[in-house]
Amino acid sequence: MAESWATSGVDLHLHLRPAPTGTGVRRGLTDAIREAVRGGRLTPGTRLPSSRSLAADLGIARNTVADAYADLVAEGWLTARQGSGTSVAERPVPRPSAGPTRHPRSPFPPVHDLIPGSPDLSFFPRAAWLRASRRALAAAPNDALGYSDPRGRVELRTALAGYLARARGVHTHPDRIVICSGFVHGLMLLGGVLHARGLTSLAVESYGLDAHWRLLERAGLRTVPLGLDELGTRTEELTGGGGGGEGELADVRAVLLTPAHQFPIGKSLHPDRRAAVVDWARRGDGLILEDDYDGEFRYDRQAVGALQGLDPDRVVYLGTASKSLAPGLRLGWLVLPPSLVGEVVAAKGRIDWSCGVFDQLTLAEFIDSGAYDRQVRAARLRYRRRRDALVAALAARAPQVHATGIAAGLHAVLQLPPGTEESVVRAAVRRRLAVHGLDLYRHPDSTAERTDALVVGYGTPADHGWAGALEELCATVSPAGF
Amino acid sequence: MAESWATSGVDLHLHLRPAPTGTGVRRGLTDAIREAVRGGRLTPGTRLPSSRSLAADLGIARNTVADAYADLVAEGWLTARQGSGTSVAERPVPRPSAGPTRHPRSPFPPVHDLIPGSPDLSFFPRAAWLRASRRALAAAPNDALGYSDPRGRVELRTALAGYLARARGVHTHPDRIVICSGFVHGLMLLGGVLHARGLTSLAVESYGLDAHWRLLERAGLRTVPLGLDELGTRTEELTGGGGGGEGELADVRAVLLTPAHQFPIGKSLHPDRRAAVVDWARRGDGLILEDDYDGEFRYDRQAVGALQGLDPDRVVYLGTASKSLAPGLRLGWLVLPPSLVGEVVAAKGRIDWSCGVFDQLTLAEFIDSGAYDRQVRAARLRYRRRRDALVAALAARAPQVHATGIAAGLHAVLQLPPGTEESVVRAAVRRRLAVHGLDLYRHPDSTAERTDALVVGYGTPADHGWAGALEELCATVSPAGF
Repeated sequence: MAESWATSGVDLHLHLRPAPTGTGVRRGLTDAIREAVRGGRLTPGTRLPSSRSLAADLGIARNTVADAYADLVAEGWLTARQGSGTSVAERPVPRPSAGPTRHPRSPFPPVHDLIPGSPDLSFFPRAAWLRASRRALAAAPNDALGYSDPRGRVELRTALAGYLARARGVHTHPDRIVICSGFVHGLMLLGGVLHARGLTSLAVESYGLDAHWRLLERAGLRTVPLGLDELGTRTEELTGGGGGGEGELADVRAVLLTPAHQFPIGKSLHPDRRAAVVDWARRGDGLILEDDYDGEFRYDRQAVGALQGLDPDRVVYLGTASKSLAPGLRLGWLVLPPSLVGEVVAAKGRIDWSCGVFDQLTLAEFIDSGAYDRQVRAARLRYRRRRDALVAALAARAPQVHATGIAAGLHAVLQLPPGTEESVVRAAVRRRLAVHGLDLYRHPDSTAERTDALVVGYGTPADHGWAGALEELCATVSPAGF
Repeated sequence: MAESWATSGVDLHLHLRPAPTGTGVRRGLTDAIREAVRGGRLTPGTRLPSSRSLAADLGIARNTVADAYADLVAEGWLTARQGSGTSVAERPVPRPSAGPTRHPRSPFPPVHDLIPGSPDLSFFPRAAWLRASRRALAAAPNDALGYSDPRGRVELRTALAGYLARARGVHTHPDRIVICSGFVHGLMLLGGVLHARGLTSLAVESYGLDAHWRLLERAGLRTVPLGLDELGTRTEELTGGGGGGEGELADVRAVLLTPAHQFPIGKSLHPDRRAAVVDWARRGDGLILEDDYDGEFRYDRQAVGALQGLDPDRVVYLGTASKSLAPGLRLGWLVLPPSLVGEVVAAKGRIDWSCGVFDQLTLAEFIDSGAYDRQVRAARLRYRRRRDALVAALAARAPQVHATGIAAGLHAVLQLPPGTEESVVRAAVRRRLAVHGLDLYRHPDSTAERTDALVVGYGTPADHGWAGALEELCATVSPAGF
């Protein structure tokens, strides 16, 4: 399955010039391999040559190759297993609204986990969920247990239509909601439908999730990153304004955004840009995919409503229970413009028809009984306290590092001194702290200014692990830490 | 989305020759439209011309067109809605291991449901399921609620490995089981993987489910039907034996079979043919997809073990909870040869990562506690009684009709006098009895001998509806019924 090194076409000789000696060689080699993995030329699972043979090929010391490999293993780009050499890791990509957040295999298996993308799983309301489950199953008609509507159970779609209107300003009707198996499933369905409509590209943000871009590209949609500045994603580039890439973006008819809380940068989209992107969609028959992965978690003010409320005919709203409850539920929802419902339902019915009905009925009951609101309120308080503790600890112990972005969500971005991101990530690995550098989230074609930063998932640990994780994080980023 | 009649390229003039008058015209027109729908030239949703305009086009009486449309609506090929004319129905295709079994819209909405593909949903063990759910959730570690292994929870894979070995002779290991969202999801994953491996076609049985063939064809695999005779599917045609289609079948490297209980014909694959197909797979690097949708329900003897047990390296076993428990669980499983695990897991991870964990953990607990065995035993007894009642009632009231196939499963095939299938199905519709003719399950390219028969899902009704459904069935097929 995996491509072999020999056929990957990656030529390290090119990358090594003009850095023929010492640490320069090690750095050049590390960069070259990292770029090859990031750019997809080296695919996950590809076996690398032994350090001995690569060193011989390149005419450099074997230790230099071994050191470069060790660096990349520590960073999570490669994996080393005894007896089977070194190979390209499954990408250690976290997901704000879908997918696993496992840390890559490493010689220093992590003890503390601050990888973003997961809520505190120990906070899942097991007892309340079971109670809702009992009520839901007792009330369910027999035919709920059969093959049912590919959109999902009407009880859940009805509960969500009410909840999303109230909590996120989403304007919809149960008939236009499709329950899916988490965000990725919904994005895959939309990607297929858009491709079938003739789209060949889709605009995305400069930073985001590699897994999402790859999914869209497998669906036949090239992803074209929009620029990024202090006001957030430069949506005006879609209309050819602001010096954006008129060439590639001129043909784009759809855009994937995280307007409430850009992932991972952590800003909300400026009101002018919200208006601009909706205006673009209206004028040019465009479609906005709104990934509202953590819109319920805003700490400093009332959350900004969903973009979908501005134009329900031009925005697909994608929501998930993965952050508010647990990823293991595998429940997400698409709120669709009327014109897309038929195609999405048909695409979904072809694949797996529907998600399990018991969890759907239970979530409907959970929402209707008010338990969902209570859980979100309690979680908001919990995560807000963690964010406050993080900011305070950094101010005290690592004043050169500060959290940017709005007070929201389950992750923060820590700006680092220029040029230090890689060494901080490596220092974290040695401290057995799993945390990601911002660079892991950068679109390969982005031209946005690079900054050195960490993406810290403060929502991930259980309460008993939070203090220790924060301690290790502060030690890592403190002036003496790396 | 739907094709229009005008662009469908279906020319009814051709089909009408040489039957220019009276009932011949009606019959010719009915056949032509039915074939166009069956063959995919008229796709679901296509609007048909008004009876007035088609009659004018064809130079025949408007009533003849109206009658033909009414016949096809009664048979479920077309739907008629007030104010929006007549269009091609979503195919009323039942599914033995996946998908909906809704009856098509009809001017006579059914009261009795004998469409195959669903177990008696009133028999789902709600209380026992809830108990298992409580135990499972109490025992689950926190990380079970996170993003987990795309193969599914190890608890369920372990329980299934034990159960399938014991109940179906499946030889496997939990690492080689992948939990999926019902049979169709599993088949879609396999279709994608086989296509990616370079396969362009796949052998199937002469009778089966249109939805499965279409799914495989969308994955890029042409489906080529094997012949059928008294011993079951003519698997020897794969090796060019027995006068089979050496041409098309010569290149086939995979076959989808229902060996334990052919769906819908109802026979089990003859032992010689079981051996032959495994031998074919071994010699030519072939792969067998074994759809064991109802293998637990055999009434006359110990069930024949799964084909997978004969060669776990050459057979993918596909199982489901849709017949033994409920389709609404959306739980199925693939038991994979080692060589396929990596590709299937990668394909699954790209789509939706995993099914909901709560139902997976509950089913694991349900199996481990013995509740699953008890449920299957009780269901076996229930369905066996229904089958016995069906056979006895037919013998008494419609001796010219008899159930064929082995005493197994949740459906029976009733052989009808030659030439009567269509009129019996129409008579059933008038009696508000939902039941399918065998022809609905025939592969469009099959050259197997046609027989007139009904496919009766005696497992579908609840207990309180069974007697009434059986009464209407007997009245329909009795000599005076149609």
